[in-house]
Amino acid sequence: MAEAVAILSGGLDSCTLVQHLMNDGKEVIALSFDYGQRHKKELWFATAFCGKRGIQHHTIDLSSITPLIAVSSLTSSKMPVPQGHYAEATMTQTVVPNRNMIMLSIAAGVAVANGAAMIGTGVHGGDHFVYPDCRPEFIDALQKTVRLGNEGLSNPYLEVFTPFARMTKAQIAYLAFQSGVVFHETWSCYEGGEVHCGKCGTCVERLEAIDISGYTQYDQTEYADKEYWKTVVQSPEVV
Amino acid sequence: MAEAVAILSGGLDSCTLVQHLMNDGKEVIALSFDYGQRHKKELWFATAFCGKRGIQHHTIDLSSITPLIAVSSLTSSKMPVPQGHYAEATMTQTVVPNRNMIMLSIAAGVAVANGAAMIGTGVHGGDHFVYPDCRPEFIDALQKTVRLGNEGLSNPYLEVFTPFARMTKAQIAYLAFQSGVVFHETWSCYEGGEVHCGKCGTCVERLEAIDISGYTQYDQTEYADKEYWKTVVQSPEVV
Repeated sequence: MAEAVAILSGGLDSCTLVQHLMNDGKEVIALSFDYGQRHKKELWFATAFCGKRGIQHHTIDLSSITPLIAVSSLTSSKMPVPQGHYAEATMTQTVVPNRNMIMLSIAAGVAVANGAAMIGTGVHGGDHFVYPDCRPEFIDALQKTVRLGNEGLSNPYLEVFTPFARMTKAQIAYLAFQSGVVFHETWSCYEGGEVHCGKCGTCVERLEAIDISGYTQYDQTEYADKEYWKTVVQSPEVV
Repeated sequence: MAEAVAILSGGLDSCTLVQHLMNDGKEVIALSFDYGQRHKKELWFATAFCGKRGIQHHTIDLSSITPLIAVSSLTSSKMPVPQGHYAEATMTQTVVPNRNMIMLSIAAGVAVANGAAMIGTGVHGGDHFVYPDCRPEFIDALQKTVRLGNEGLSNPYLEVFTPFARMTKAQIAYLAFQSGVVFHETWSCYEGGEVHCGKCGTCVERLEAIDISGYTQYDQTEYADKEYWKTVVQSPEVV
């Protein structure tokens, strides 16, 4: 009987979520999703993160969906990854339609089957502007749908847990360090290179957030370019 | 640009749904799901059904989820298939947790990516008693969630289309024949035998429904036992 099912991409936010649940004494099942990403690095990091902590972890193969929803540079290797800041114009092309709902629906099925009372996801404030499926009103509607759809089968108060929904990325970076997440144990970069590129949207956001958190000196992540982010205008989502 | 994405199991209800959309002049993408069913017969029937009609059809592999949600005799070959009527006591063991939400979430992603304004599913009145995720209130909540989660990306009126939600199985059987579905082109049986067993819950329901529809003489489906269903008490869901 697990207590929480958490969606784990292997990035900073979702690793912090899993760490938070673990520190809270919860039995966690972590789920990662292979939807045919350009690279599998984040999946390897997710596996290693859980392995080190003795957390049950499964990678779910959704790659057969990819050809049907391939409108995103996240899943299509033919499209360039946008560089610079998470801004609406460049980042909407990385939207994988309905991705959060698909992952949360599967997590809900796993939660019901395992008697868990909580489905956790690390969506956060900074995502609201670009991704409609990261907004609190979407999460609320989804929680209602999950409860109705599993009435009598699941915990009636089955909760979609989004502790970062109203946090900034910098606050998550702060919480990450405080809770015991080691920055270089997580993978954020959209590019699947040897090291973090430092220039894609998530790298810029990550570096800026860690800087604001005040823990840059503890970030042993290797970046191909560790200065580029400073040339990009600060984003309201991070701060 | 497809106009409708429909979930197609290969059974009587979902084949009737696809036929209905096609007769309505809609460009349809049909999606089947391999969630590690005990047998693949319904998937073969779904493929053949679409092939014959020139409908775009994809089978989505969700089998990596099965070990995580294996509480159902539908997906576990170790559990016996319940025989006789769809009654709460015997049929709850065939519930795959959150299955409809998972399939509909994926269908929504495909709809958004392909510009479709409709997601169709053949859930019907008879399912309400056993499956909470077949009830109209669940469908309503899900439609709201889908619209919120894809705001600005999809048709704002993206509809979850469930024309059979308030129909009985017998009414669907009637509509099936009237709309051009050939009964033996569809597969209902939970067992994956050479022919329909005639004794499992879906076989009993199918035979009873076709009988009530008045079209039994046109049902060329082979059943191992074509009389057993008459020995089982009639169910309110079928009539």
